Amino acid sequence: MGLKEDALQYHGEHNGILGVCPKAKLENRADLSLAYTPGVAEPCKVIKEDKDLSFTLTCRGNMIAVVSDGTRVLGLGDIGPEAAMPVMEGKSVLFKCFADVDSIPICLGTKDPAKIIETVKLLEPTFAGINLEDFASPKCYDIEDELKKIMDIPVFHDDQHGTAIAILSGVVAALRFVKKDLKTARVVVNGCGAAGSAVARLLVEMGAENVLSVEPVGILYDGIDAPLNRIQLQVAKTTNKEKIKGDLTVAAKGADVLIGLSGPNLFSKELMASMNKDAIVFGCANPVPEMTYDLAKEAGVKVAGTGLSVYPNQINNVTVFPGVFRGALDVMARHVTEEMKVAAVYALANLVADQDLREDYVVADAFDPRVGPSVAEAVAQKAIEQGVARKKVAPGVVYESTMKRCAKK
Amino acid sequence: MGLKEDALQYHGEHNGILGVCPKAKLENRADLSLAYTPGVAEPCKVIKEDKDLSFTLTCRGNMIAVVSDGTRVLGLGDIGPEAAMPVMEGKSVLFKCFADVDSIPICLGTKDPAKIIETVKLLEPTFAGINLEDFASPKCYDIEDELKKIMDIPVFHDDQHGTAIAILSGVVAALRFVKKDLKTARVVVNGCGAAGSAVARLLVEMGAENVLSVEPVGILYDGIDAPLNRIQLQVAKTTNKEKIKGDLTVAAKGADVLIGLSGPNLFSKELMASMNKDAIVFGCANPVPEMTYDLAKEAGVKVAGTGLSVYPNQINNVTVFPGVFRGALDVMARHVTEEMKVAAVYALANLVADQDLREDYVVADAFDPRVGPSVAEAVAQKAIEQGVARKKVAPGVVYESTMKRCAKK
Repeated sequence: MGLKEDALQYHGEHNGILGVCPKAKLENRADLSLAYTPGVAEPCKVIKEDKDLSFTLTCRGNMIAVVSDGTRVLGLGDIGPEAAMPVMEGKSVLFKCFADVDSIPICLGTKDPAKIIETVKLLEPTFAGINLEDFASPKCYDIEDELKKIMDIPVFHDDQHGTAIAILSGVVAALRFVKKDLKTARVVVNGCGAAGSAVARLLVEMGAENVLSVEPVGILYDGIDAPLNRIQLQVAKTTNKEKIKGDLTVAAKGADVLIGLSGPNLFSKELMASMNKDAIVFGCANPVPEMTYDLAKEAGVKVAGTGLSVYPNQINNVTVFPGVFRGALDVMARHVTEEMKVAAVYALANLVADQDLREDYVVADAFDPRVGPSVAEAVAQKAIEQGVARKKVAPGVVYESTMKRCAKK
Repeated sequence: MGLKEDALQYHGEHNGILGVCPKAKLENRADLSLAYTPGVAEPCKVIKEDKDLSFTLTCRGNMIAVVSDGTRVLGLGDIGPEAAMPVMEGKSVLFKCFADVDSIPICLGTKDPAKIIETVKLLEPTFAGINLEDFASPKCYDIEDELKKIMDIPVFHDDQHGTAIAILSGVVAALRFVKKDLKTARVVVNGCGAAGSAVARLLVEMGAENVLSVEPVGILYDGIDAPLNRIQLQVAKTTNKEKIKGDLTVAAKGADVLIGLSGPNLFSKELMASMNKDAIVFGCANPVPEMTYDLAKEAGVKVAGTGLSVYPNQINNVTVFPGVFRGALDVMARHVTEEMKVAAVYALANLVADQDLREDYVVADAFDPRVGPSVAEAVAQKAIEQGVARKKVAPGVVYESTMKRCAKK
């Protein structure tokens, strides 16, 4: 069978790919009287006195929502909430398999940002975190920013931040391999949509001082006369201090790192050949990247990577989002801060030790069992350090428990 | 340990009692490419062309939401959404164990009926049914009625209809035992709140012509001068054709059936002794019934039952809601009609055969394996008959498949 038939069978054979399961035994009347009336009144009464106990006495503590309105799904565009369900459901399965995070897909029957915000806020008592997914840009920024303000549980738009963390972990490791410094390296990010802007912003947060963000209107700079959204304006303000003007060709010339979150085949051999020595290129457009791995190597690029699993250095969000939420849940975090994202970047980048780094191995494999636990540990400890954790755990505990949780699967 | 300690341990030991689990295998990159990108795009594209396929190609087809705002939880009152979570979660576990229905507790952070209605409506693309739970009366009527109007999946307020179906299945079987006719029997329902009004309305729907509904203001009748809500007014209009006036004592005298959905110990021995020969009494107040089983027997009542599991003829919603939704899901029903509820009543009542009926056995046991399958079968076939099913299945199929689903647990 082809991919289409295989996929339809995989998703249809059992009526979707996600179900629920009891975590405690329910075999007789005695169990029933604990699971439901009259015993169930006891946790209710206890939580009524301290709402935070809902994290430990109900499924809430390990349950997040994967929320979408279906307006920008994969490369398919605005396909609606029903048609977006397989993606959210698939994501829920990955959350479970890669970090034992329980989650449920929630596809909303509205595209109105105000209604989306209100609805998600009203779901807060039920969940310990919100993973936003596949909302069109630029409304995704408003939805996430507003929810982060009004909610007391982590809100994380994976298309932005999961992608940015995954890519930048590869960039950090690759720079370590070629012995260049993130602070001074010229990093060009082509595309300033949801993922591209998140990459540029996180680069700045990480101390990179020579970042150029490129849109079809040219390299962004403070004061550029172009119809930009508020996030692109922010990127324009905080990158390109020299106010370099021009197109991607100008930006890429002599650059140390080139990151694509733009479109298929936009990085020509000539473009990549014009970069600095020991060039690093990550082409992350989906499903067709900005360049093939082989073309990058032909152009003399030192370290290349794409989103494709069949080539080296695959950039894959699945190395990020399960661990981020695992760490956040384990300390009952109120938010995912920028610093927690940076901690995730370095946790991932450090999984490939100096002596193991090769040009075709700067990114840890998604199935490497250390991935989820390492990200979770880093995120949890940073949350504690920053005072956004409701619960403290000793260093190493989250790593070990995540390892155990995933080994059981 | 006591009930409190046992219950807190049961709910807290594993961080709540409900989790999610993948239904398809995810062990390698090939599985990953089907569960998520690139394969997941295939079911998305197919559903985009026909939204109903989301019932078969995603978890939606077997997934309902157990929704509450926590305003009237058990006997605890308005304890808020976080504190209501254990009840909704317990309910989800029962849905799974008794009919293999996947469900997720959703406790909303608002008490505003308009916002509740809007939020639940927006969740429609995600779920195949909505079980409303523990909403205060009378707003529960408005929420359910409006949602039934605007949603194209079943909406079922279990506190009303699950309770009514469970009680009336006992009444029907008990009347069969004492050889009386529901049409002519005098049936007194004490209490006209959510459950009491649902019992009275369903009795009328079932053809009972001599129903009296009693509130503290007296027996309801068309034109009564009392501050009633719109559902109580409807009950007043459709019951008590003779416009009998008076209190519970007047109503119960000579009655064939007395049903309590009112409060603890409201049925005295004298009251029950004043009923007709072969009297039937169900006292369903929770956690303390209107009378003890023993007091009813002392008063000469022929068939008595309560909500307590330690006495005969326990009335328990768990015999109802799992099967109702199982049947609705199996035919992808758009609604749960009154006729489907009546079908559930008779399916349950018929589980105790004529020759097996005893005064202490008119109600099938909740753990009787035929319960869920029988209710599901009846509900599914009635849905098909009434044209509210998206899918047709041959008679017997739902019974058999439910039996198999539950045997696997």
